[in-house]
Amino acid sequence: MQYFPAALQDLADHFARLPGIGGKTAQRLAFYMLGLPEAEAQDFADAIMQAKKTVHTCPVCQNLTDREVCPICDDEMRNRSVICVVAEPKDVIAMERSREFNGVYHVLHGVISPLNHITQDDIRVKELLQRVATGEVAEVIMATNPDTEGEATAMYISRLLRPMEVKVTRLAYGVPVGSQLEYADEVTLSRALEGRQEI
Amino acid sequence: MQYFPAALQDLADHFARLPGIGGKTAQRLAFYMLGLPEAEAQDFADAIMQAKKTVHTCPVCQNLTDREVCPICDDEMRNRSVICVVAEPKDVIAMERSREFNGVYHVLHGVISPLNHITQDDIRVKELLQRVATGEVAEVIMATNPDTEGEATAMYISRLLRPMEVKVTRLAYGVPVGSQLEYADEVTLSRALEGRQEI
Repeated sequence: MQYFPAALQDLADHFARLPGIGGKTAQRLAFYMLGLPEAEAQDFADAIMQAKKTVHTCPVCQNLTDREVCPICDDEMRNRSVICVVAEPKDVIAMERSREFNGVYHVLHGVISPLNHITQDDIRVKELLQRVATGEVAEVIMATNPDTEGEATAMYISRLLRPMEVKVTRLAYGVPVGSQLEYADEVTLSRALEGRQEI
Repeated sequence: MQYFPAALQDLADHFARLPGIGGKTAQRLAFYMLGLPEAEAQDFADAIMQAKKTVHTCPVCQNLTDREVCPICDDEMRNRSVICVVAEPKDVIAMERSREFNGVYHVLHGVISPLNHITQDDIRVKELLQRVATGEVAEVIMATNPDTEGEATAMYISRLLRPMEVKVTRLAYGVPVGSQLEYADEVTLSRALEGRQEI
């Protein structure tokens, strides 16, 4: 027998399809939505469609935006000859928080991952090559995650860029500021040693 | 500076308002929705409003339903002289899974909880009293959760029912089937002793 009304079960099923939401949580969320005032539920439904409708990728850097060109690419004060390549839009935010970078970005929307059937054609590599091919770019900073896939993607792209006479750099590896040496893993420590600098 | 397009931030804010969803998870869910095909996102938005529109409480037992009267209250085979009182619609499902109960239900939609400002007027007690007042009810089984608030609510309701010449019972306390005695807490064990039965 069906325990839940069909529409409630359907809503719970929709929630359960979201990443990281299990069956029980989906049920709880569906109950919660049902308890909301009609107007708030409508707001939620509208927010979904509004985001789908107005948010798209910036034609220059591929970051998400609701303007024609994203605010960073549109900013006259940013140095357009330095491109920082990141995997996801949220990495742009992380970089911006550091307040250290004044160049522009390129968002790949993923990393090459054969295990997940994501190839170089599924991420925005072509768009990056086109930007560099204009000859206005002096340096490309690879800022993909320091894990296997991020590393492989950075390597792959830097090989493509090599014939294009552009400087390709990678974020420094090392011990995180504020961390404790005893908890640092060996690979990080050996990278930190390798990259040691004079003080 | 605003890092996200407004509509994306708005969607993430909506997710963050759901119970148990933190800021980071809300962001991830908003990104995920953005990545869905337009039709699937529309389905999700529709599911919310569909659930809000079609699901309401059964006028008899207060359980959620999309029919005029819920399938359990509508079932001629169920014994209407026994009412099992539960706190939430999901408790009905738990009871139904046991396949032991052939009576009908009454869903309170909450328990009395002074700390959360939930009084007897916020839960469906009045509706239960009206059902019992018809004189067609022989027994009311209190099946609220075996915690402080569920216990207090059961006590409160049973006091209201006392003058109405109806048998009021409570689910048995004891050690859960399949559990191990060494892990049972003292209160449960002493209740299990109190309620011991001849074999």
